Amino acid sequence: MIIVMERGATREQVDDIVARVRELGLGAHLSEGEERTIVGVVGSPLPPTLDEQLEIHAGVEQVVRITKKYKLSGWDFRPQKTQIRVRDVVIGGDEVTIIAGPCSVESEEQTVETARAVKAAGARMLRGGAYKPRTSPYEFRGLGRRGLEILALAREETGLPVITEVMTPADIAEVHAYTDVFQVGARNAQNYLLLEEIGKAGKPVMLKRGLSMQLEEWLLAAEYVMSQGNPDVILCERGIRTFEPATRNTLDVSAVPVIQGMSHLPVFVDPSHAAGKRALVPSLALAGIAAGADGLMIEVHPSPDHALSDGAQSLTFAEFAALTPRIAAVAQAVGRSLPVVDAVVSV
Amino acid sequence: MIIVMERGATREQVDDIVARVRELGLGAHLSEGEERTIVGVVGSPLPPTLDEQLEIHAGVEQVVRITKKYKLSGWDFRPQKTQIRVRDVVIGGDEVTIIAGPCSVESEEQTVETARAVKAAGARMLRGGAYKPRTSPYEFRGLGRRGLEILALAREETGLPVITEVMTPADIAEVHAYTDVFQVGARNAQNYLLLEEIGKAGKPVMLKRGLSMQLEEWLLAAEYVMSQGNPDVILCERGIRTFEPATRNTLDVSAVPVIQGMSHLPVFVDPSHAAGKRALVPSLALAGIAAGADGLMIEVHPSPDHALSDGAQSLTFAEFAALTPRIAAVAQAVGRSLPVVDAVVSV
Amino acid sequence: MIIVMERGATREQVDDIVARVRELGLGAHLSEGEERTIVGVVGSPLPPTLDEQLEIHAGVEQVVRITKKYKLSGWDFRPQKTQIRVRDVVIGGDEVTIIAGPCSVESEEQTVETARAVKAAGARMLRGGAYKPRTSPYEFRGLGRRGLEILALAREETGLPVITEVMTPADIAEVHAYTDVFQVGARNAQNYLLLEEIGKAGKPVMLKRGLSMQLEEWLLAAEYVMSQGNPDVILCERGIRTFEPATRNTLDVSAVPVIQGMSHLPVFVDPSHAAGKRALVPSLALAGIAAGADGLMIEVHPSPDHALSDGAQSLTFAEFAALTPRIAAVAQAVGRSLPVVDAVVSV
Amino acid sequence: MIIVMERGATREQVDDIVARVRELGLGAHLSEGEERTIVGVVGSPLPPTLDEQLEIHAGVEQVVRITKKYKLSGWDFRPQKTQIRVRDVVIGGDEVTIIAGPCSVESEEQTVETARAVKAAGARMLRGGAYKPRTSPYEFRGLGRRGLEILALAREETGLPVITEVMTPADIAEVHAYTDVFQVGARNAQNYLLLEEIGKAGKPVMLKRGLSMQLEEWLLAAEYVMSQGNPDVILCERGIRTFEPATRNTLDVSAVPVIQGMSHLPVFVDPSHAAGKRALVPSLALAGIAAGADGLMIEVHPSPDHALSDGAQSLTFAEFAALTPRIAAVAQAVGRSLPVVDAVVSV
Repeated sequence: MIIVMERGATREQVDDIVARVRELGLGAHLSEGEERTIVGVVGSPLPPTLDEQLEIHAGVEQVVRITKKYKLSGWDFRPQKTQIRVRDVVIGGDEVTIIAGPCSVESEEQTVETARAVKAAGARMLRGGAYKPRTSPYEFRGLGRRGLEILALAREETGLPVITEVMTPADIAEVHAYTDVFQVGARNAQNYLLLEEIGKAGKPVMLKRGLSMQLEEWLLAAEYVMSQGNPDVILCERGIRTFEPATRNTLDVSAVPVIQGMSHLPVFVDPSHAAGKRALVPSLALAGIAAGADGLMIEVHPSPDHALSDGAQSLTFAEFAALTPRIAAVAQAVGRSLPVVDAVVSV
Repeated sequence: MIIVMERGATREQVDDIVARVRELGLGAHLSEGEERTIVGVVGSPLPPTLDEQLEIHAGVEQVVRITKKYKLSGWDFRPQKTQIRVRDVVIGGDEVTIIAGPCSVESEEQTVETARAVKAAGARMLRGGAYKPRTSPYEFRGLGRRGLEILALAREETGLPVITEVMTPADIAEVHAYTDVFQVGARNAQNYLLLEEIGKAGKPVMLKRGLSMQLEEWLLAAEYVMSQGNPDVILCERGIRTFEPATRNTLDVSAVPVIQGMSHLPVFVDPSHAAGKRALVPSLALAGIAAGADGLMIEVHPSPDHALSDGAQSLTFAEFAALTPRIAAVAQAVGRSLPVVDAVVSV
Repeated sequence: MIIVMERGATREQVDDIVARVRELGLGAHLSEGEERTIVGVVGSPLPPTLDEQLEIHAGVEQVVRITKKYKLSGWDFRPQKTQIRVRDVVIGGDEVTIIAGPCSVESEEQTVETARAVKAAGARMLRGGAYKPRTSPYEFRGLGRRGLEILALAREETGLPVITEVMTPADIAEVHAYTDVFQVGARNAQNYLLLEEIGKAGKPVMLKRGLSMQLEEWLLAAEYVMSQGNPDVILCERGIRTFEPATRNTLDVSAVPVIQGMSHLPVFVDPSHAAGKRALVPSLALAGIAAGADGLMIEVHPSPDHALSDGAQSLTFAEFAALTPRIAAVAQAVGRSLPVVDAVVSV
Repeated sequence: MIIVMERGATREQVDDIVARVRELGLGAHLSEGEERTIVGVVGSPLPPTLDEQLEIHAGVEQVVRITKKYKLSGWDFRPQKTQIRVRDVVIGGDEVTIIAGPCSVESEEQTVETARAVKAAGARMLRGGAYKPRTSPYEFRGLGRRGLEILALAREETGLPVITEVMTPADIAEVHAYTDVFQVGARNAQNYLLLEEIGKAGKPVMLKRGLSMQLEEWLLAAEYVMSQGNPDVILCERGIRTFEPATRNTLDVSAVPVIQGMSHLPVFVDPSHAAGKRALVPSLALAGIAAGADGLMIEVHPSPDHALSDGAQSLTFAEFAALTPRIAAVAQAVGRSLPVVDAVVSV
């Protein structure tokens, strides 16, 4: 950490800072320039909010943190890319992984039918919400345990591993009994106690990015899971909140390569929630893969205009089946693959 | 709800929409213009996501919801402003209410000393975090139950009611035993199950605005509490996330009058979290009161540069004592009062 | 336009609105429901701010505009996609077009050398700034006319058409004498008089999206050019301003398919300005093409760390030459082509 | 400037950076820690984009600029607050200044009548647009020169100095002949050539903040004016663009104290454009004054629902007259004054 003193900082103010740093058991190294004094802080670990504490001292102009706040999720800690095995699916390898399924589990028929359709079209995992966070308390909030049972049944029928959301610590044990991967939704992305409890539960976790989370904060949220001994975190970019009303959220496609430069964790893209509109989903899916995403999470429904939630952004079976070969083609173009599907390059 | 069909919508597409509306047990009323057909939907209650469901039908250009999504928090439901009594303090009346105290409860001495100082300067309630949500898992996270005990002790010493944050449903009972008001933090503002559980706990709730929550979403979050039978929700604007890095968050001062136009619930402003810098807190506090806020929530610490959290934004006792008479003066200027304090108009 | 009256609107308020509408020479059509009255406004053209004027009348709850504000740029006006010929390059056809070159023209050698390199690697047009908008008045602001001469010389040497920015109406004639395409930068995207003057100048225009421009506003800015008789506008998404500091701007890749749904104009992506960091440019370039962009605008410099502007985001010749075959591969995967280049699919 | 090298940076990479710094005629000062090397850059002036140039060198982790980019507008350059005299009005002194008037000059009668009304209620300057920037080319764009003549006439009638917008360099001479203060609108806030030309014109300038301008960028825009020899710049916060749709823009009230900490220039608030809705204007006006603004710019119209532009956000004469005593009261409460008006403290 480097403390830049103001141009007119007094001797006393500098001494004060040095004393404060030493009081914390750290070393201070002075460099006095013509115009300003700069204090280097050495020693570790630095208290995480040390910069804030020092910034308010009289005479301090700026405090610059050099070391990163995130640890377990960074390349410094683990120099190989994380691969996560979920039954027979490997996430984070050369193959890109498509997770597909309905927003909400509505019935056995709807879910099993969708599972079969998305499997046939190239999906490797089934998504479906049993507990649904809804902006309004007056909306459909999922079938709960019955939804979990249906997911398990669809897994049995198709062999697809399942992923479903857990919203509160009290539900973890129940969800654990059915799911292969826990999902933490955007609105819970900084629900730290939920993250820690899931971190203890011993199954992979997909952590969606919060609506206004900076990338560093996202990794710090992942650390809440990882610091409990669970290294298997999948990040999922699903659009951020901006001033643009034309899409439900703004897909931050740059987050994919930026995160890959910061972290060894796999990164997915959810084009359905980002777009909020069915017609945009294919373009965003392809953009995500082109940007280097390790996989996609796509909403598919047998009859989107009868869906109990998020119908507007769900693909039909036919639309999904038309999309996967295009995903395969783009994946191949960027050095990845989507093996189940024949990459049909349109002419 | 009004469904605007596209210019070239076919007879069949219009019929389709009408059939879908009737399938849901609602009435459809056609108005055929020269250029377009418009379908009015009547009946109630409308399914909350009906607009989304209808929007994706072929031939539909736009769906306009006329009725508001929020209910219990709106003026239609309750035409008088909500006043909330917390021991001998009335929130939402003519007097503005100042809540002050340290970000985190760090020790008995620190807390009691602060409680005395802020009471002397005009605060009517004591804040202090026992359970602290932190962006990083490696930061100080509060004293937990010991923190709650200290708050109760400070209340005993000073008579100030206390408010403290609860982060997860499992802690509600414990926090309930000590606090007068539950606080839900910005990062939990859409943690719906937490909101519902607190709604059942039977004490007033201060609901901070999420970092990227639109005002309608904020009221819908309040409805999660209210729909459990608890009408005593205080809203607190604490800054939203924008592109401007000069402040930790951007205080959306317009939210105060806008919410007051939408809802009968009292609205507070938290200038400390909005600013993130001590020097800005007074200006934002005064702006909040001038805009019509029902109260303020301000961080005060005996020695901010030794605070374990948020020291950069905490006022010293002297700074707080210098601020309250100015708050009283502005309150008076906008037809409110802050009675404990003499309004000293600077000259 | 539809005017939704408040639930309690009086007869008089409704009459008032109807009178106001008729005063403007428009027709009003009443539809009285059980709960509210709705007034349809018919006739054309509607004054562009009619909604604002009506919204403030007593008793009005909401005014809904049905017709779009943009005209010439919309599909209703022109049902074929716009193709723009610039010398022998066709923009907006099946082939995607790469424009490349230095941020600023710095010298003849630098520019001609870059033109040759980018041409060899597959670029079809040369970019280079002679007049540079800079955030600070103390930065390098371009070579001016000398820069234009150098661009013309590079065109002569390589046959590549050139595009360069014009910042103020007084420079239009001079820039017109040298450039093939005018560029309007993000900071001038709502400099309406500049847009109109360029609209009269009779050469194609690339209009960058403003940092916080909504998509409808972008099309309306294009209309300033088009309403002067110039239909040849190319839109270029270059990142918007959001809360995320990891990238200079946030590439709104969704803007590509959304604009293509609204407008017949070709849409480019500028991954260099969006990213602000060289290492991210390839991923964003590929994402842009995958999302359906008609072309890319990429900064390339012989020695980026000696560039007088934007070196941090410029590719070297080698990096650019490595990127174009990957662009060609993704283009092919989404049914487009980049013919000069062999699509090398990485394995 | 401080260059922080990566943890694993090689000797050669450090030498490279040092060589690059010296090549630019600057000094480099090495400080080698256990974990990293830090290079201090000394000498002046530093090239404005030096940080960008150095950041891309191999082995560099972070470059930290210590000196500020803005100069003439900063306290370092001028330690007294700038006061600007416009006829007999002094801006930036103890008195707060209210500028009021219609969005657009529509007729002599409308303008003179408004001028008289706002003067009687306490305004010290008259605003009115003769050249209007409009999002759409199909909207009313002002009366042009006739509008300027009407403003001059209203000044003659009332003695109020006038302020009006200039949109393009070619209009400066004409506007100069009539106006007392030039206004540069939000959409032209980074139209650098316009700023420079106005800087040469020798009359005070009000520079509105761009919709997504960071505060440092705003000061740099002011420097374009000031570096041409014109020190008389008034800044005006008018709301920024955020995700919140409830207001037309989000008033960044924190900008007032933050700018006052950075710069000696006076800062105004425009509550009309920030709110976009008449009912919110009073609250935002009072909040702006409470936060320390040097003045307000408020839209007033004799008949807002017949206004040719921005009627929705214009106050009636009666509303304005009811507001100014409240402004006076808040001004007094924060140690300022609004002398023409009796501060009526509501009870």
